[in-house]
Amino acid sequence: MKPYKEMSKEELLEELQSLNEEYRKYQEMDLHLDMSRGKPCKEQLDLSMGMMDALNSTVDLRCEDGTDCRNYGVLTGIEEAKVLIGDMMENNPSNIIIYGNSSLNVMYDTVSRAMTHGILGNTPWCKLDKVKFLCPVPGYDRHFAITEYFGIDMIPVPMTEDGPDMDMVEKLVSEDASIKGIWCVPKYSNPQGYSYSDEVVFRFAHLKPAAPDFRIFWDNAYGIHHLYDHDQDFLPEILAECKKAGNPDLVYKFASTSKITFPGSGIAALATSPNNLEDIMKQMQNQTIGHDKVNQLRHVRFFKDIHGMVEHMKKHADIIRPKFEAVEEIFSANLEGLGVGNWTKPFGGYFISFDSMEGCAKAIVDKAKKAGVTMTGAGSTWPYHHDPYDSNIRVAPTYPPIEDLKVAAELFTICVRIVSIEKLLEG
Amino acid sequence: MKPYKEMSKEELLEELQSLNEEYRKYQEMDLHLDMSRGKPCKEQLDLSMGMMDALNSTVDLRCEDGTDCRNYGVLTGIEEAKVLIGDMMENNPSNIIIYGNSSLNVMYDTVSRAMTHGILGNTPWCKLDKVKFLCPVPGYDRHFAITEYFGIDMIPVPMTEDGPDMDMVEKLVSEDASIKGIWCVPKYSNPQGYSYSDEVVFRFAHLKPAAPDFRIFWDNAYGIHHLYDHDQDFLPEILAECKKAGNPDLVYKFASTSKITFPGSGIAALATSPNNLEDIMKQMQNQTIGHDKVNQLRHVRFFKDIHGMVEHMKKHADIIRPKFEAVEEIFSANLEGLGVGNWTKPFGGYFISFDSMEGCAKAIVDKAKKAGVTMTGAGSTWPYHHDPYDSNIRVAPTYPPIEDLKVAAELFTICVRIVSIEKLLEG
Repeated sequence: MKPYKEMSKEELLEELQSLNEEYRKYQEMDLHLDMSRGKPCKEQLDLSMGMMDALNSTVDLRCEDGTDCRNYGVLTGIEEAKVLIGDMMENNPSNIIIYGNSSLNVMYDTVSRAMTHGILGNTPWCKLDKVKFLCPVPGYDRHFAITEYFGIDMIPVPMTEDGPDMDMVEKLVSEDASIKGIWCVPKYSNPQGYSYSDEVVFRFAHLKPAAPDFRIFWDNAYGIHHLYDHDQDFLPEILAECKKAGNPDLVYKFASTSKITFPGSGIAALATSPNNLEDIMKQMQNQTIGHDKVNQLRHVRFFKDIHGMVEHMKKHADIIRPKFEAVEEIFSANLEGLGVGNWTKPFGGYFISFDSMEGCAKAIVDKAKKAGVTMTGAGSTWPYHHDPYDSNIRVAPTYPPIEDLKVAAELFTICVRIVSIEKLLEG
Repeated sequence: MKPYKEMSKEELLEELQSLNEEYRKYQEMDLHLDMSRGKPCKEQLDLSMGMMDALNSTVDLRCEDGTDCRNYGVLTGIEEAKVLIGDMMENNPSNIIIYGNSSLNVMYDTVSRAMTHGILGNTPWCKLDKVKFLCPVPGYDRHFAITEYFGIDMIPVPMTEDGPDMDMVEKLVSEDASIKGIWCVPKYSNPQGYSYSDEVVFRFAHLKPAAPDFRIFWDNAYGIHHLYDHDQDFLPEILAECKKAGNPDLVYKFASTSKITFPGSGIAALATSPNNLEDIMKQMQNQTIGHDKVNQLRHVRFFKDIHGMVEHMKKHADIIRPKFEAVEEIFSANLEGLGVGNWTKPFGGYFISFDSMEGCAKAIVDKAKKAGVTMTGAGSTWPYHHDPYDSNIRVAPTYPPIEDLKVAAELFTICVRIVSIEKLLEG
């Protein structure tokens, strides 16, 4: 088929009529499908059921150094968990704090602590007139929700296939001392699935921020979440690069096992420099006596080591790869060449990012919703839920069963085409 | 023996010599005993090993409403956990949020949120010149650490056997709008083991604070932690009393299963009014997607219901009651009538509180330490670690094996007597 823009009004109207008929068929199916959130599906969760047997009443719950994991103590996590998560994050165990069940919570706490107590002796952010964060867009809505909640001004920075526009990042952070942070999902980014290039990581490590308390919030959410055995993205390790660049304290790196074992019942971690660790522990010792060591031990006993975790991730990939491919195939079959949108084809992570013609995203998501398919809200990949182009839609293929997913993807492409034609006819 | 104050100098010197000889015998034993923290002992932890079998790989991890506990979601906790913890806290499940593993963390977050965002639309505390908390003394060092960390001024309020001095509390909170909170351990208080009288609870519920955002931080840490079957303390339920008094939003009530199952691997909860819950959830939805539902389910499946939990607590009591009684017997046998100190005899909780003669506590704790017995640091039961009388010492009998505990208690009484005599000889 030729691009819609090259079609005559008559051709478009004819196409629209046939699409509307198709759309109505979907409406009659009374669908209740959800492509909105990056949730593992049941089969993925089943992969970790063995973890429920890793500990039982006959098992010794002491860790390697003899500490009884059942009792109070061990503020920063048990050593063997630091080793496992260190291998997962590509960091030295001594640079790691193991937290509770949610890396989002760790990020929230990190911002909150900077608000109330400042970073490494600098003025608490709550005492400043203005605090700003850079937000690569499209990005992760829950990141933006944290900074919005704390009244931090969010400045969008365009993403490229190689990562954020570093010319812009370098210029802004070097000129404006009220810019205190940047949200990054460096590998298989949310929602595009892009991975930062070596050069982008290198330029991040060499940033010269005007603010001494500027930090990179490096959310390594998908560090080992590959879709393919061979087509994997590799990134230089940011802590190591910052150290080499003479900027050891520049980055907070976050990760969790939420999409490895059970979301909500995994373990989260932060890796950062000794200075930052010391700064954080001053707070942490007032906040808690320690996180759930039994669950840390459960994870270690289940995986044994990083190789066990990597093998486990291959099973995840085998379940979700066909889902990504199904969506990509349907998008290609139904949309390729029409000039109505572009989508990403990531090698890992949890999302496909779809960019419609300008001004169409909200209408597409609404139209899908009316036929029973829930997408992530249009705009939610931008700060303040405001996508100035009204074009980005995050597609989350992992959760629905593949047959449902195919139906949802087909319906989605019909919605894209209808809304695009309506837009063209308007114009 | 007669009171030391009635002894002649010669009698005191003779007594001192014999005590010093005894003390040296203990020094030669190369002891390493710890009565410093309120930690359950190994036998207590063993009671909950069955919880490690409550879930396994063959068990359905969906909760009663069909939610898969392994996946994301359910911000405020699964319903059956709210029912169980509601029964434990004597609150309606609908008034409860289930959190992660630490009620201390919930208290910290509650103060932190008030700092950054204020309570129910009031000015964030970080924007105020001065924020003050009332601190019943002696009290819990980790409470005081939170308020100290946030730069909140702490005003000591004397404890009585019935609870805090309510004349003082009422006067202060009604006159000073910068007083925003009070730390309470209403039942089997830390460290005295006192329980607030009905009248004290009633007066708390009827407080008329000058500050609209004044809150009672009601840490019900030992709600079902009785030592005896029949000699139990009962308190009116504070949320209900506040509601009756027309002060429904006055209190945040905290609890956890830390000293019921495994410290660090239990579940924590907050109970409060619908207005406060709504206020908290505005923050919480930015902080996390949800806490560990699998662990919530594990607790529910293990206990089944509150009766199961109560029966479980009797087993705890059977283990620690002899320890409390052993300490009390040794204190009585060695100190009664000497006029060198008083101690409490609680019906529950985790501590005995010892008050030495003024100006002796630090020296007693130091002397015990030099013979290998670690007590909670003198002063730590007061804000800023400053006990103006240098007299209160918290005794934690639960953790050491009973034979060790007896040795430690004997040694402690020797230290008390030596230091008291030295004090009297000075004066």
